[in-house]
Amino acid sequence: MSVITLTTDFGPGEYVAQMKGVILSLLPGTTFVDGSHEIRPGDVLEAAYLMEVMVPAFPPGSVNVVVVDPGVGTGRKALVVRYAERTLVAPDNGCLTAFFDEATAVHEITEESLFLPEVSATFHGRDIFAPVAAYLAGGGTLTGVGPEFSGEPVRVEGLHAEGEHGRVLHVDRFGNLVTSFPGQSVTDRARLEGPQGIVERTARTFSEVEPGLAFLYAGSGGRLEVGVSGGSAAKHLGWGPGTELRLRSDA
Amino acid sequence: MSVITLTTDFGPGEYVAQMKGVILSLLPGTTFVDGSHEIRPGDVLEAAYLMEVMVPAFPPGSVNVVVVDPGVGTGRKALVVRYAERTLVAPDNGCLTAFFDEATAVHEITEESLFLPEVSATFHGRDIFAPVAAYLAGGGTLTGVGPEFSGEPVRVEGLHAEGEHGRVLHVDRFGNLVTSFPGQSVTDRARLEGPQGIVERTARTFSEVEPGLAFLYAGSGGRLEVGVSGGSAAKHLGWGPGTELRLRSDA
Amino acid sequence: MSVITLTTDFGPGEYVAQMKGVILSLLPGTTFVDGSHEIRPGDVLEAAYLMEVMVPAFPPGSVNVVVVDPGVGTGRKALVVRYAERTLVAPDNGCLTAFFDEATAVHEITEESLFLPEVSATFHGRDIFAPVAAYLAGGGTLTGVGPEFSGEPVRVEGLHAEGEHGRVLHVDRFGNLVTSFPGQSVTDRARLEGPQGIVERTARTFSEVEPGLAFLYAGSGGRLEVGVSGGSAAKHLGWGPGTELRLRSDA
Repeated sequence: MSVITLTTDFGPGEYVAQMKGVILSLLPGTTFVDGSHEIRPGDVLEAAYLMEVMVPAFPPGSVNVVVVDPGVGTGRKALVVRYAERTLVAPDNGCLTAFFDEATAVHEITEESLFLPEVSATFHGRDIFAPVAAYLAGGGTLTGVGPEFSGEPVRVEGLHAEGEHGRVLHVDRFGNLVTSFPGQSVTDRARLEGPQGIVERTARTFSEVEPGLAFLYAGSGGRLEVGVSGGSAAKHLGWGPGTELRLRSDA
Repeated sequence: MSVITLTTDFGPGEYVAQMKGVILSLLPGTTFVDGSHEIRPGDVLEAAYLMEVMVPAFPPGSVNVVVVDPGVGTGRKALVVRYAERTLVAPDNGCLTAFFDEATAVHEITEESLFLPEVSATFHGRDIFAPVAAYLAGGGTLTGVGPEFSGEPVRVEGLHAEGEHGRVLHVDRFGNLVTSFPGQSVTDRARLEGPQGIVERTARTFSEVEPGLAFLYAGSGGRLEVGVSGGSAAKHLGWGPGTELRLRSDA
Repeated sequence: MSVITLTTDFGPGEYVAQMKGVILSLLPGTTFVDGSHEIRPGDVLEAAYLMEVMVPAFPPGSVNVVVVDPGVGTGRKALVVRYAERTLVAPDNGCLTAFFDEATAVHEITEESLFLPEVSATFHGRDIFAPVAAYLAGGGTLTGVGPEFSGEPVRVEGLHAEGEHGRVLHVDRFGNLVTSFPGQSVTDRARLEGPQGIVERTARTFSEVEPGLAFLYAGSGGRLEVGVSGGSAAKHLGWGPGTELRLRSDA
């Protein structure tokens, strides 16, 4: 009962299907969970946030692959990380930033005998990450994919706000804005400033707020989020991934 | 071989993934079917229609979760329904309207020991519905989730047309309009009126009709639908979910 | 451990879910892989390309269903094809063009006892293809679905460029344009001409090219593709599925 989760910026189509086909060819009976395939193309910061929020929900023993890989085909390295009994597989570009501090092992993927016989220049998801994930989910060891990683893994900047300065990390399907501020910063005195907009209202749930008004709340992923009841905060405020924000605490 | 189906307005991303992770952590080996995650945000009527059309196709023994939940975090109740050997799990807001008349049991979800240790204010899909679904799919009883529901469950209005008056319930990917009129009302004398448009042509299949022309047909879900061969009826007519319609029978 | 893959133009919603429900009702424990459900409505050529690129990645023994079926409900036939130890199921409209030359068997689907009791006029995916796929994945024989196909199966035109003349087959989520020219035609002297645009630059990976510039590369699916580093070639050039192209080799 191996569980492999896949998170990419590929969209839910032919690329993800090929990864699953490769994995099932090597490890029949794998259970797949699609994390998200809607990450903005190349947005490693969004990938890092989504992995942070999803991985704890995935079961111990699961192998969690994230491929947002604008540097595919260059010299960027590839990593396997062990974190809280889960295994994480990704290019070394910051997608796994949330996990390095508490990782119990980080290995570099170098064992080419695990890869597909022909490795393309543009699709390591299928040719490298999929077969490596199958190997690991089938009981393979981290040492089997390559040596302990001696360098410092790449971390993406901006995953956590620094003081007053943060940003939008992700917009969900409702148009809610997930920010780099912690959920605990939602207090009666909080005041979030962004381009052409300020949000000061706070609430616990959407139904507390009059439709059409923007408000701050502590999101289910542990971050300060901005919502509009019955509407899209992203549209309402014109903010989106990367929008810079400032969080003040009114005296 | 437990089957759990998930239908939401979350989009196919991180929220659905977290629900699946929670379920797999509790019930390894679960088979998931994604019903739809493209329901319009908060549109309980569309959810009710989609459940009506999908649930009969899902296998007996399956646990079918629908979470379209604009009232999350308020006092709205949550239900488990047994219908035709299937189990349905949802907030008590009308998502399960199609099933109450023939339900063999309706229980309220109250057993907090089944929930995740920390229940968020905005994501009961992950914190309540997912673990309850895992419990039920793993053989748990309705009594185990809470007592028989003593009240009258909430029903959504508009799922079935009343006389001549109906509406659009759902637009599929082709732009076909699914209405609240029954499929049997497609007759040679039918005449469907909506804003700035009237459709009188009827057909059995798309290829019978000249491209670009709107027509009525009995859809595969048992409803009167409006299609345009080689095009989108929704775009062609400018109608969408909620559009009010009138169905006349020309004498 | 039966694997069934599903590829359609239905979008990832209620139609695909019904197909999976029908299959699981007949063959519990089936593992599903979603190929793509984002094919342009009715675009058999795109379907043919996507099957060409995906099927080799799916495991031997898998049953691969593709339903892009603008002629549903008419007299068009339905086929089962055996190719490289995989089984393919589709309407006879060209979706399987890539496989006929090397197919080891082609049968017509005629055995109505396999179908759902009531076959709709518009949704053979659920009523015919799903139960037939379950039958085959459960060990059924090609003869069991119908006799050897005596006619010539329908092939879609344009899957492979003829000489200098080709076209766009598919646009992926990044906006990369997959063409009907082979990947080997990417050489230093290649020059791709389309409406209001010419692309001459070539590269092996995206990171070799300055952001915003279009270039040719040999894609992971074996075709000449056009990309824009950090952007969408489709938007940049204004090309899309069906756009006619001319590939010259500068002397």
